[in-house]
Amino acid sequence: MTNETAGPWRTLSALRDRVPLVHNMTNFVAMDLAANLLLAAGASPAMVHAAEEVEDFLDQADALTINIGTLSAGWVEPMASAARKAVELGLPWILDPVGVGATPFRGETAQRLAHLQPSVIRGNGSEILCLGGGQASGEATTHGVDSTVESAEALDAAHDLAKATGAIVAVTGAIDYVTDGERIVAVANGHPMMTRVTALGCALTCLMGACCAVNEDYLEATAHALAILGLAGELAAAEATGPASFRVRLIDAIYNLDEATLLDGARIQ
Amino acid sequence: MTNETAGPWRTLSALRDRVPLVHNMTNFVAMDLAANLLLAAGASPAMVHAAEEVEDFLDQADALTINIGTLSAGWVEPMASAARKAVELGLPWILDPVGVGATPFRGETAQRLAHLQPSVIRGNGSEILCLGGGQASGEATTHGVDSTVESAEALDAAHDLAKATGAIVAVTGAIDYVTDGERIVAVANGHPMMTRVTALGCALTCLMGACCAVNEDYLEATAHALAILGLAGELAAAEATGPASFRVRLIDAIYNLDEATLLDGARIQ
Amino acid sequence: MTNETAGPWRTLSALRDRVPLVHNMTNFVAMDLAANLLLAAGASPAMVHAAEEVEDFLDQADALTINIGTLSAGWVEPMASAARKAVELGLPWILDPVGVGATPFRGETAQRLAHLQPSVIRGNGSEILCLGGGQASGEATTHGVDSTVESAEALDAAHDLAKATGAIVAVTGAIDYVTDGERIVAVANGHPMMTRVTALGCALTCLMGACCAVNEDYLEATAHALAILGLAGELAAAEATGPASFRVRLIDAIYNLDEATLLDGARIQ
Repeated sequence: MTNETAGPWRTLSALRDRVPLVHNMTNFVAMDLAANLLLAAGASPAMVHAAEEVEDFLDQADALTINIGTLSAGWVEPMASAARKAVELGLPWILDPVGVGATPFRGETAQRLAHLQPSVIRGNGSEILCLGGGQASGEATTHGVDSTVESAEALDAAHDLAKATGAIVAVTGAIDYVTDGERIVAVANGHPMMTRVTALGCALTCLMGACCAVNEDYLEATAHALAILGLAGELAAAEATGPASFRVRLIDAIYNLDEATLLDGARIQ
Repeated sequence: MTNETAGPWRTLSALRDRVPLVHNMTNFVAMDLAANLLLAAGASPAMVHAAEEVEDFLDQADALTINIGTLSAGWVEPMASAARKAVELGLPWILDPVGVGATPFRGETAQRLAHLQPSVIRGNGSEILCLGGGQASGEATTHGVDSTVESAEALDAAHDLAKATGAIVAVTGAIDYVTDGERIVAVANGHPMMTRVTALGCALTCLMGACCAVNEDYLEATAHALAILGLAGELAAAEATGPASFRVRLIDAIYNLDEATLLDGARIQ
Repeated sequence: MTNETAGPWRTLSALRDRVPLVHNMTNFVAMDLAANLLLAAGASPAMVHAAEEVEDFLDQADALTINIGTLSAGWVEPMASAARKAVELGLPWILDPVGVGATPFRGETAQRLAHLQPSVIRGNGSEILCLGGGQASGEATTHGVDSTVESAEALDAAHDLAKATGAIVAVTGAIDYVTDGERIVAVANGHPMMTRVTALGCALTCLMGACCAVNEDYLEATAHALAILGLAGELAAAEATGPASFRVRLIDAIYNLDEATLLDGARIQ
């Protein structure tokens, strides 16, 4: 993808043109931000989690995202059913194993979902290290839902996880890495203020769903989502006075992102 | 209601004076925005959904709103109980059949609730078309929770739905229509940016609850809520740089709305 | 604590240095604001509520907060288990009995939790009056989840509640009072606009958890949380044009709060 600077814009344009319907089973903290981020980017978000309807709803969806941030027992089976239905329909589906190392419940659920053929798995260094190591519980690399390791330290685990699951694996951090188990793409966009807005990683997972819905090269689509959000973060930081004004400007920046800015600002290698 | 330009202000003033307690059973995406919108308008919001307390809570409430946006099986009976209790107490209750056409589960639940004597039913074109047609599942007029038809195309269905349920029916879109099955009122306020903020329609439903709590003419109260929110949207759009700053300004605009601005700006016919 | 003007800054500095992991079982309306407020203050928030993992998660947490704002039956036992585990681990845990007077379900749950050795109980005048009076249901002092009494009117009840439970009790209002059943501290920071932002009291409860995690004198830590949030509210109000811009500026203000401003602005007596 080196020198492929036009890529992120192609993906964002397609997203705006086609308005993909992204079905999200995400956590309660992320729902508002994720839906607004998707709307700002040009997608059509829906939050649907009931066992009675997740499969029916997917019939009209263009992508599925699953996030275990505020997991409870009643959500596990609907998540698994939705994942299987997405695979059956050939839809991209993205897994976000939030805090996978923090408790056995998360570990077991995330391991199970990771083996239902996700198209993409996105996590911070700690999450990918834990999930890629095949372990159900933590490794002293997690602080609640935050990572205590750099993304680069999880590269081997990301590679193994991609091989084991067939998924594209994205490790996010100061530098983001995306791998299919062979190629590795690094995305250098972003800003430290992004760690001060809750659920921004979760919303990013939803944006990956939207990008994969319009770009069948999921490795590329995932990297594009990272560049788009990261660049919007850089633009927002230039005008923000703290994390809340940063959040407002970030969403506005995604909405206003144009070809020249994205061509100039995306840092994908 | 032609030439009745003072109406919306009378309703908003009464709302601010009487601070109605609006009991909302709404979706997880809408809770934050809806509560903040109600507070900004002058009402007192509460989000209460447990079977153990919905009926008790209604004893002190002034209105009830029910929204099926993130429906799950455990919420259906409490919603029905709350609706029946509201009717028993003579409280206005507003139904928002989000995404009713998207799955049979939503269709069946919305049909059931629609026949528990709601005071007002609010939906986009697709939702009213589906619910008014008496069908439990979609019609190729829905894209997730978004409508693919204009509000005017759902006018016949709105009329039928009002006749069948006894409710005031509001179809929202670029032009909003409100009917009791005989009279039709059109409200021309609003701005396209309103479609880029998640759950704004859901929050509008809650505002209708607040307006109906202080104005017993529910057709009028519903039209007033539409004019108030739509005008706030117009004011916000003039200053916003994207959907997130628009949302901030919209809530501030409702809080600051004064008599002269509302008299001048409301477009109810 | 008179003349102890350096205290709030010492607590806020410790919070920023130590980044305590605050485990919150809070309501759906508050989750977004509470997590963002904690991140802005310097803490690490997590929202975890499932029976399957609340106790495991506490093993790495530094504080627990429990809030019954959108209570449902399935959350009660996990709340009680978490409270017991926090006590066992010696972690501070904070109870927010939202709307305790509004229904018997809330009253019974809050009474039960209040007797599981919370470190701090925070409520508005109505809530403390109801809980301190030992009654399971309301007293005509509550309007939904809002108080209809001044905080000072609940001082006797706060005193009794502190004696009966062993908790520090904070009654919030125009003036906030904190008592351990013997000493009483008053905090005079804050701004009326704070009552126009939903769940700000709930988020304050979470901030108390973060402060207690880094300051073992819970009476002091609680007063410091009140001064920090109240002062941020004053700073935000000076620049806001309504409740939504106020909310944005409040979070930014907490993030930017420096020693001189806090020393000068905290009003703890």
